[in-house]
Amino acid sequence: MSPVVNGRVLFNEIPSDFPVPGKTVVYDTSQVIDLDTVNVDRGILIKTLYLSIDPYMRVRMREPDVKSYLPAFELGECLTGFGVGKVLRSENPKFEVGDYVYGFLEDILSEHKYYSVQDGAGLVVIDNKYELPLSVYLGVLGMPGQTAYTAWKEYSNAKKGETVFVSTGGGPVGSLVIQLAKRQGLRVIGSAGSDEKVEFMKDIGADVCFNYKTTCTRDVLLKEGGIDIYWDNVGGETLNCALEAAKLRGRIIVCGMITGYNEGYNTLISNLVQIHVKSLTVNGFVIIHFEGKYDEEFYRVMTPLVASGEIKYREEVTVGLDKVGDVVLAVQKGENRAKAIVQVAID
Amino acid sequence: MSPVVNGRVLFNEIPSDFPVPGKTVVYDTSQVIDLDTVNVDRGILIKTLYLSIDPYMRVRMREPDVKSYLPAFELGECLTGFGVGKVLRSENPKFEVGDYVYGFLEDILSEHKYYSVQDGAGLVVIDNKYELPLSVYLGVLGMPGQTAYTAWKEYSNAKKGETVFVSTGGGPVGSLVIQLAKRQGLRVIGSAGSDEKVEFMKDIGADVCFNYKTTCTRDVLLKEGGIDIYWDNVGGETLNCALEAAKLRGRIIVCGMITGYNEGYNTLISNLVQIHVKSLTVNGFVIIHFEGKYDEEFYRVMTPLVASGEIKYREEVTVGLDKVGDVVLAVQKGENRAKAIVQVAID
Repeated sequence: MSPVVNGRVLFNEIPSDFPVPGKTVVYDTSQVIDLDTVNVDRGILIKTLYLSIDPYMRVRMREPDVKSYLPAFELGECLTGFGVGKVLRSENPKFEVGDYVYGFLEDILSEHKYYSVQDGAGLVVIDNKYELPLSVYLGVLGMPGQTAYTAWKEYSNAKKGETVFVSTGGGPVGSLVIQLAKRQGLRVIGSAGSDEKVEFMKDIGADVCFNYKTTCTRDVLLKEGGIDIYWDNVGGETLNCALEAAKLRGRIIVCGMITGYNEGYNTLISNLVQIHVKSLTVNGFVIIHFEGKYDEEFYRVMTPLVASGEIKYREEVTVGLDKVGDVVLAVQKGENRAKAIVQVAID
Repeated sequence: MSPVVNGRVLFNEIPSDFPVPGKTVVYDTSQVIDLDTVNVDRGILIKTLYLSIDPYMRVRMREPDVKSYLPAFELGECLTGFGVGKVLRSENPKFEVGDYVYGFLEDILSEHKYYSVQDGAGLVVIDNKYELPLSVYLGVLGMPGQTAYTAWKEYSNAKKGETVFVSTGGGPVGSLVIQLAKRQGLRVIGSAGSDEKVEFMKDIGADVCFNYKTTCTRDVLLKEGGIDIYWDNVGGETLNCALEAAKLRGRIIVCGMITGYNEGYNTLISNLVQIHVKSLTVNGFVIIHFEGKYDEEFYRVMTPLVASGEIKYREEVTVGLDKVGDVVLAVQKGENRAKAIVQVAID
């Protein structure tokens, strides 16, 4: 077989606020690869099928000397992220040709390119006994699902009858939190940024749902009598409202602060004193710091529930590696309609 | 015996920033009391000996419709707080004449007056078998000591060799935290607002001590290689520095935010995202929300250590009920030299 173009998505420029498609990241076709002859060097050759586009990726689009929980993307190099691929060739006994693999926690799978050669370290072979769509391993059964499950388990201290407020309740993390909370008998208030996402929150059982763009978060939380738990994916003024509405000894799980990723952390959180006054507990959470603590349980418990439809999820699949820049921006703006997936190739 | 003047300290005006002696609170001599004939109504008549002046009192000097963990002081009524008194008369079988009593957790002992009639609910008879000065029951063996002990026990998750940063390390809460941390083998960084307090922190074993008015907190924390635990009594920019200097999965105990009590919570905490990024745990703490969880242990363990001098404390005793307003202000400004006590009467 003759060489084929190996399209890539390169990190091209550090954005000053929102990432700009075609500028922050660019689609590049300058590389070719010969799939039959490329040296896999005791590793594997993978064909990328799906890539996950997640909010945290914006955190990596920064100056390399600024520290964070993941290294900065390198200018001129491929984006990386979670992904699902298929093994085309293998010189690593852990993998067989035809295996489907995905990247797992801090071992990031995929360069954002059609084909990649890797040593295979950190890749997991998908045991797809329920024959689920492979993209679920990037959402409800991937990092977002593990994030929701692990932090809820570790930090919610949830009790039946309590009230939880979930921001970004239409997203892959928030929507699983809503369902976990409902299964435990909590009352759920969910917020999202589109009416479509509000509908989805209703479908999965949230008791009170609202579009934060058209309804005042503070009013809803106070009207509903306060909250025992707040699941924070956004930070900023929403966090400030939640601090005000938190009940005595309430819990806040800070799983993301997307309002600050693009425009800086310039919101004055005037209610921070409520942490003291109400003896609140606030736990920050990044899944990579928890070393797979609940992974075995997560897959054992959640996979059948996803397969049976008892746990619901939604995805928005965009076709084409050249669309990554657009999807990255949509996720930062909250304009994606559901868990954002880029389909790179057909199996 | 003929009636005597029963001097009182009244809450006179809600302060807009720092409380003003003679304006926010006033000393009043308009009441008289006949100690022999006053109706104690199946309760007790107490002679106040010592009153505790604490930072939290500022939180009660507010509009009554603003919620907080303790009710607002009532205009025209006595201040209340923790205190130690002596029983002069008793119709309550729990108390004998001559007993020394103190106020316990949410059951506030003392109106700020010379003599008070109470039902005795919530008052504790002091078992002073080590013959300690009675004022210790307002400091190292009172609410401040219980605060330090309980929150440290509950939330520090301290491990030998870790580094803790203690703000207001020269105060009654902070200085006990320093000593608890040292006894557990931690490295301690302490900050305080006067050189005298810095000296005290050295005396009790803090490894690195500085005066935050003359030394940059951020520089110290970063130079010392970051912190595993931050004991926050102040909030504001100090909290912001601690968030920056916190290590992965660090812990922050928010025991007070005095920088905001008088001037509002207008500091922009730009490092709040570090809670997420470093998977930090932040626990707010007010002792009254913990229902005496460690009280038995606290008195059993700490009383002999205080008696033997193994646990050190300092007090600044001001004589005269009419001085309450001045001491309240000094505590808010951090100009008190040690745990602030007002001696109301000699036993």
